[in-house]
Amino acid sequence: MDSQTLYRQLADHYLAAIKAGTLAQGERMPSVRSLMRKHAVSLSTALQSLRQLESEGWVEARPRSGYFVRRPWSKTILPLEEPSVSRPPDPAQYVGIHARVSEFIAQGRRHPVKVNLSGARAAPELYPAEELKNAAIRALRREPGMLVRGTSPGGNAHFRTVLARRAMESGMVLSPDDITVTHGCSEGLNLALRAVAQAGDVIAVESPAYFGLLQILESLGLRALEIPTSATTGLSLDALELAMRTYDNIKAVVVVPHLQNPLGSIMPDEHKRRLVQLCERRAVPLIEDDCYSDLVDVAAPLNAVKSWDRSGNVIHCASLSKTLAPGMRLGWMVAGRWQARVTMLKYAQSHDNEEWSQLAAADYIASPAFERHLRRLRTALRQQRERVAEAIATAFPSGTRLNMPDGGLTLWLELPNKLSSDKVFEAAMQEGILVAPGAMFSNSSRFDHFLRISCGFPHTRDIEEAMRRLGGIVAMLSRKAA
Amino acid sequence: MDSQTLYRQLADHYLAAIKAGTLAQGERMPSVRSLMRKHAVSLSTALQSLRQLESEGWVEARPRSGYFVRRPWSKTILPLEEPSVSRPPDPAQYVGIHARVSEFIAQGRRHPVKVNLSGARAAPELYPAEELKNAAIRALRREPGMLVRGTSPGGNAHFRTVLARRAMESGMVLSPDDITVTHGCSEGLNLALRAVAQAGDVIAVESPAYFGLLQILESLGLRALEIPTSATTGLSLDALELAMRTYDNIKAVVVVPHLQNPLGSIMPDEHKRRLVQLCERRAVPLIEDDCYSDLVDVAAPLNAVKSWDRSGNVIHCASLSKTLAPGMRLGWMVAGRWQARVTMLKYAQSHDNEEWSQLAAADYIASPAFERHLRRLRTALRQQRERVAEAIATAFPSGTRLNMPDGGLTLWLELPNKLSSDKVFEAAMQEGILVAPGAMFSNSSRFDHFLRISCGFPHTRDIEEAMRRLGGIVAMLSRKAA
Repeated sequence: MDSQTLYRQLADHYLAAIKAGTLAQGERMPSVRSLMRKHAVSLSTALQSLRQLESEGWVEARPRSGYFVRRPWSKTILPLEEPSVSRPPDPAQYVGIHARVSEFIAQGRRHPVKVNLSGARAAPELYPAEELKNAAIRALRREPGMLVRGTSPGGNAHFRTVLARRAMESGMVLSPDDITVTHGCSEGLNLALRAVAQAGDVIAVESPAYFGLLQILESLGLRALEIPTSATTGLSLDALELAMRTYDNIKAVVVVPHLQNPLGSIMPDEHKRRLVQLCERRAVPLIEDDCYSDLVDVAAPLNAVKSWDRSGNVIHCASLSKTLAPGMRLGWMVAGRWQARVTMLKYAQSHDNEEWSQLAAADYIASPAFERHLRRLRTALRQQRERVAEAIATAFPSGTRLNMPDGGLTLWLELPNKLSSDKVFEAAMQEGILVAPGAMFSNSSRFDHFLRISCGFPHTRDIEEAMRRLGGIVAMLSRKAA
Repeated sequence: MDSQTLYRQLADHYLAAIKAGTLAQGERMPSVRSLMRKHAVSLSTALQSLRQLESEGWVEARPRSGYFVRRPWSKTILPLEEPSVSRPPDPAQYVGIHARVSEFIAQGRRHPVKVNLSGARAAPELYPAEELKNAAIRALRREPGMLVRGTSPGGNAHFRTVLARRAMESGMVLSPDDITVTHGCSEGLNLALRAVAQAGDVIAVESPAYFGLLQILESLGLRALEIPTSATTGLSLDALELAMRTYDNIKAVVVVPHLQNPLGSIMPDEHKRRLVQLCERRAVPLIEDDCYSDLVDVAAPLNAVKSWDRSGNVIHCASLSKTLAPGMRLGWMVAGRWQARVTMLKYAQSHDNEEWSQLAAADYIASPAFERHLRRLRTALRQQRERVAEAIATAFPSGTRLNMPDGGLTLWLELPNKLSSDKVFEAAMQEGILVAPGAMFSNSSRFDHFLRISCGFPHTRDIEEAMRRLGGIVAMLSRKAA
């Protein structure tokens, strides 16, 4: 038996005990040393099994005391409902998103903000600034010439090699040459859409969708067709198939398979496979936005949608902005059969990326520090997410519904009595609390009674108090609305 | 009398002597100390007058020996002819540029290149790699947090302040907030064009034009309308006015006022003023690509076209790629009355630029080292340009015509007997010499007997030999063609 299976077996053994209540909440787990003795395993296997349980949220490490069984997230709040998928979406419901988003941002700027819960970002202190700085300085010392030479077509070769190697863990077999380095995932999505569609075309997207994607579509003159999406399993394939049968002008599908923003849904592998086949059969290009997958609470990386692609019909876009360095604006894409066109568009749009960020990031990603950082980041985010969810369960009135995603930076909640989240946004604003109202995530009015709330920041007393105030506002307004 | 006028007077005094032959070629100029004594001026005035003469190409500094009168560029070759401007350009002559450019690049890759004269780039050693590296390391040490924080909307505030201050020298009065930082000038041109036009629209450009611009237009589905352009004074305003009267669908004009690529022309101030007024009157947005102006051989910076703009109708795009750091991909733009739309498009296209390059560049630009670097770069480029021009005058057959621009990285020449530059390209390729054939610079066949030759690299024996071989090829092929 290999060590991989061994640590998993050991973890499962204790997991069963936790689930059965044999090991109660708050109880100390056996020490690494006693695990080694009792189960005759190596130090590394014992440690790995504890870390596995930790990464899944069953135990937590306390400094200098060992691991303890965690209080599991108490589901005292209704889950989100599944969307209706029986009718094709109505493209006539379209509302320009940019004016809408700008209006919210402008309003946000007119008021002093005390607690900002509107972003999908993690706190800067959750990222390894010092290590990245050192990697950057090493890269500059090693190759100062890169500042004054022309840049490398497609991106720095070393960075692309590191990315290609890492992509194997997500089930993609790539050559470094298959990869185009971009300025964040946004540029990747732009290039992908420009490669496969032109102004006036219709693009199928998840509903709700990240407003940045809707802005990209709008800025390119493309029309979003919003497909019902489950908070659990992501894009509804039945709804997509129905839409494809109803409209013959869908030129691409954009999907966020892992921790969809704002839903937090994760697409099951079986759905990914079916989605790839459906798009392939209908000859509709499939664009995968996979910038959150390293934030999912699982030990092994999830398979990219692209890993089921056999014909080059899937364009995979990813980035390091959410997982490693929000300030480095590093993304990349694998454009499949559109690579030649993407290469041309990238050159015409912004030429190649500069090399130093690529070299610094490559250094860090290729070191064991990266996985350690991701583990710490996921643990911190999970704790923050659970604290915010608990605050919602405590402070918000009954009838509030909430997803509880397996990772990521935000929660998505439905207000009771179809209460307008614009009103909540405005009232919260008056108290210096900024949230993202549901209207930002759709060209329709479908999510006007939803809110997206950030869990990216350590749960301070200010955040706790803001959540309490927010709950009070929702309760007050929803009584009026009822 | 102020010191500005004083050093200019002193320089003119010696210039008259050089022109009259009183001071002969190769002769040593009076030393700084003797100038101070003879003319009763300060050290700084004496030095400034010598530097002025140096920047205009009349004297050269030799290490530890002082200044010497230079051999002036001997005009033994025909200048380029002025273009005909009597008929409006014919948009039907359009040929897709991308396929054409790709074909040349692909051909270039199939052969081993010994001497590459095809680029508009300067040698890396002409840029201050070490100083930039140090500035970058200082910036990283001072603010490692910038790697992990969100980026600043529009660009780093300090960088934009430094740029705004520098822009004053080109006659533009800007607030830092007027500036949007971009990934090189290419992204600026992209955003400018996307802000004012949409697929199918017609854009007036200089003819010949930089193929990168033609690729941008093509990638955005825009049509280039090529306006005759003088190798001396740039875009023909008469031809532009005629085109505007003939076609009512011109949605923008793109102009490179200083060292137009490939012509090297410099637009007189009076033309700039008229151009701004013409576009204003016709309500056609004017896009200025000003990425070469710091390479012009003049002591004082030239005025940007934008400096005549009173209504926000001019979009100014610039970059540091040619003047400071080809590997840093830093550009910026001033979008005038389209700023809100450009801000939206920039966000949707690639979000904000990362900050470290901006901070490193800001440090360097704000220091006296930047002007010193520019002076050295211009001097090196002028010497290289003159060596290449002399090689052409010596080795190319009579009937060859050549511009002699006041700065920049390239020469543009017309082959005798309408000889096809594609043929010259192919024959040179066989000998490992890469040049840029005229066909790359137009959607028409108008420049098929032109060549662009790089002067960006120090004039080695290899380059001298390549120029000799190139002259031989042209002579041989033009005898056949005659």
